Amino acid sequence: MKYMVGETSNGTAVFAVIGENAVNITALDPEIGSDLAVLASQGGRVESLSDQLGTAPTVPVDSITPALPIADPGAIICVGLNYTDHIKEGGYDIPDYPALFMRSKASIMAAGKPLVRPTCSEKLDYEAELMLIVGKGGRHISEADALDHVFGYTVFNDGSVRDYQRKTHQWTPGKNFDDTGAIGPFVVTPDEVPEGAAGLKIESRVGDEILQSSNTANMIWGVRKIISIVSEYTTLAPGDLIALGTPPGVGHAKKPNPRWLVPGETVEIEIEGIGICASPIVDEKDHASEAAE
Amino acid sequence: MKYMVGETSNGTAVFAVIGENAVNITALDPEIGSDLAVLASQGGRVESLSDQLGTAPTVPVDSITPALPIADPGAIICVGLNYTDHIKEGGYDIPDYPALFMRSKASIMAAGKPLVRPTCSEKLDYEAELMLIVGKGGRHISEADALDHVFGYTVFNDGSVRDYQRKTHQWTPGKNFDDTGAIGPFVVTPDEVPEGAAGLKIESRVGDEILQSSNTANMIWGVRKIISIVSEYTTLAPGDLIALGTPPGVGHAKKPNPRWLVPGETVEIEIEGIGICASPIVDEKDHASEAAE
Repeated sequence: MKYMVGETSNGTAVFAVIGENAVNITALDPEIGSDLAVLASQGGRVESLSDQLGTAPTVPVDSITPALPIADPGAIICVGLNYTDHIKEGGYDIPDYPALFMRSKASIMAAGKPLVRPTCSEKLDYEAELMLIVGKGGRHISEADALDHVFGYTVFNDGSVRDYQRKTHQWTPGKNFDDTGAIGPFVVTPDEVPEGAAGLKIESRVGDEILQSSNTANMIWGVRKIISIVSEYTTLAPGDLIALGTPPGVGHAKKPNPRWLVPGETVEIEIEGIGICASPIVDEKDHASEAAE
Repeated sequence: MKYMVGETSNGTAVFAVIGENAVNITALDPEIGSDLAVLASQGGRVESLSDQLGTAPTVPVDSITPALPIADPGAIICVGLNYTDHIKEGGYDIPDYPALFMRSKASIMAAGKPLVRPTCSEKLDYEAELMLIVGKGGRHISEADALDHVFGYTVFNDGSVRDYQRKTHQWTPGKNFDDTGAIGPFVVTPDEVPEGAAGLKIESRVGDEILQSSNTANMIWGVRKIISIVSEYTTLAPGDLIALGTPPGVGHAKKPNPRWLVPGETVEIEIEGIGICASPIVDEKDHASEAAE
């Protein structure tokens, strides 16, 4: 199943995507609610709708404005260094345990929404990432069982303000500027992709300029291992988000000059079989005035 | 005003603490709800109750089981290195910007609840900290205005699993083990303490053993500066929690041997004018079986 959460004139709802069209499944079963939180915690709920999906009214996917797949995630956990060549370009040693950090809700937004370059820095960078949405929660999840805890996969742009990321050894500020982490718009269930979402092409682009191009098979720690490692210390809950790190090609490491995102550009992250997460870059001062209108 | 959130036979409620006794103010005004989230966002709400506080029925503070002051904080932001002598004992250089990290909801619990030593490590450490609860939210808050955004102050034990904190340069795992961050039980409004809660004695103890003893006046970055620095990158919301770092004397730096917390001990954090946050140390396996009963 491929889902999309989004707004139409009828409000925000969950849609089942079938090719270029989508069925409003919240309309078929209002208890699904207006994001994927209920389905993440009740994996089987949608199966009762399968008979209706073929005959229900559809809307074009293009007519839906994406919203966050999970409106209020309990935790947003990110793997920092998960592709060997990206670790080298950042000047880090290859670790034997993942570098983990967290993002706040204030820092994320839906695909299609402005990705905001803050007033205090011009060092705004993109990071193409696979993101998983936790289904069944738990602690001390073994690698063998880990995939049973994945509700679905989506696309993430782990937008980073590099000078603030490296003000100290803790990356938190540079990874938590308001409206810098784009998520979505599509969420695919695990049966739609190879095991652990490995072997998928992952790219970031601005127009025709390919900025990152790799494959999720190059992740050092795959989905099974990351779920096992993270759940060693914390109880995962349905709807928690885990971002799986970015491949080489980020802007700050481009030679001879860094390649920062600038207002007016639109950055796209694409993962094969999942979709494209596009974000227009907007200056904070213009975004603030837009929000005030 | 001094508040406490806690449970009695009548459920979970907000109490106004007057000496050894407390008034259930949720009973006087049900819209206050069962934690401090409403009051944090509506600072003046409780003032209409002031006439009733002198005559309302009271219960002994000791009869209330503490609950989290904010049950569902949007963000828990922590300052890592904020007392010069603690920075030196950890082997870090004194930075010109605070080391900031985040904790998840799964890692925190109310004062009085077990502080859980995980199965995978014996390196469980205490950290006495002042914590502020955001009242009025905002972004780009100036130092001059910062104190207008504080709802209150409480006591925090930033319990840390040291080997997991230092598995990589990012501290997240060691700062996010389930049930390791104790908060409360008392929350005082800013008028109850000196400006910015500076100049308060802060201690951690196990029984008669004084483990940390310092003063919040020794913080490198005070409350005004931290609110200004954090709100440069993120929009603060009512009920967000900011922990202000710990003084020297943590267990991992004790000489000649580290001083880890062990099951059976009770660790107490006390801040002058606010109160004592006490946590019994419990082994994960015993905590899990208790929870299952």
